[in-house]
Amino acid sequence: MSDDILDPEPFTVPAGFAPLNWRRGFGQVMGTLYDRAEADGGFTRAFLVEERHTNGMKNCHGGMLMAFADMVFGHSVSLTRKDHHWVTIRMLTDFISPAALGDWVEGTSEVVGRDGDLYTSRGRIWVGGRAVLTGTGIFKFATPRKASR
Amino acid sequence: MSDDILDPEPFTVPAGFAPLNWRRGFGQVMGTLYDRAEADGGFTRAFLVEERHTNGMKNCHGGMLMAFADMVFGHSVSLTRKDHHWVTIRMLTDFISPAALGDWVEGTSEVVGRDGDLYTSRGRIWVGGRAVLTGTGIFKFATPRKASR
Repeated sequence: MSDDILDPEPFTVPAGFAPLNWRRGFGQVMGTLYDRAEADGGFTRAFLVEERHTNGMKNCHGGMLMAFADMVFGHSVSLTRKDHHWVTIRMLTDFISPAALGDWVEGTSEVVGRDGDLYTSRGRIWVGGRAVLTGTGIFKFATPRKASR
Repeated sequence: MSDDILDPEPFTVPAGFAPLNWRRGFGQVMGTLYDRAEADGGFTRAFLVEERHTNGMKNCHGGMLMAFADMVFGHSVSLTRKDHHWVTIRMLTDFISPAALGDWVEGTSEVVGRDGDLYTSRGRIWVGGRAVLTGTGIFKFATPRKASR
């Protein structure tokens, strides 16, 4: 019976998106991310900006956008070799516009270069038709993933 | 009585560090950060890598390191004008070595350039004597902070 407990806005996950069931570590802490496979072989990864993702201005915190960018930019690399973990080597992130509380944020990436174990991907994050963040990531494959995760 | 509930390692916060009491939003979600003012006028910001910060390899997740970098690189800018929020414009983050579960991760930054409202800071993050991440951030002041936060 406290007035700081509000019913959340009703939210319907857009068609085709399935939640990633990351139950441990930072993937869980960041909150539910969603994936959708696209007809062209690409993917869209997404999340809803909740209060816990916000900064003091009630926009998505830059740190959350960067963490999401890491998981979006790295995913296209991951798809090339699903049985291995990858590590981030370098990220360049340009913040174009804010994502507000309640926004459904989407992102995708594509591998644009490879030099041995180093993969470069280019990614972008948007809300509706508006660009939120663009950038480039360099990733490297590390140890094999365990069969049961 | 489950074997996946383990006593945490005993942890003593290093001398001079005080916790940041961020009780809302992404600052709280990331977990407790600590600050220490340094004699030269600079600062050290820090956190302990807990299980909830980790990736599948039990190292600190790259996304968490990037979010921490945002809060470290931006802090030197924030100190120049404490009554305003700032937003991140661009971050370049180079990952030098991993931070492991249980590591005490420290970082600092300094403003190295200003062009009107745009501030550039250079920062670094380390564990003990080992570099973990280095980079550069560009930040811009936004709306005034509210008096009561």
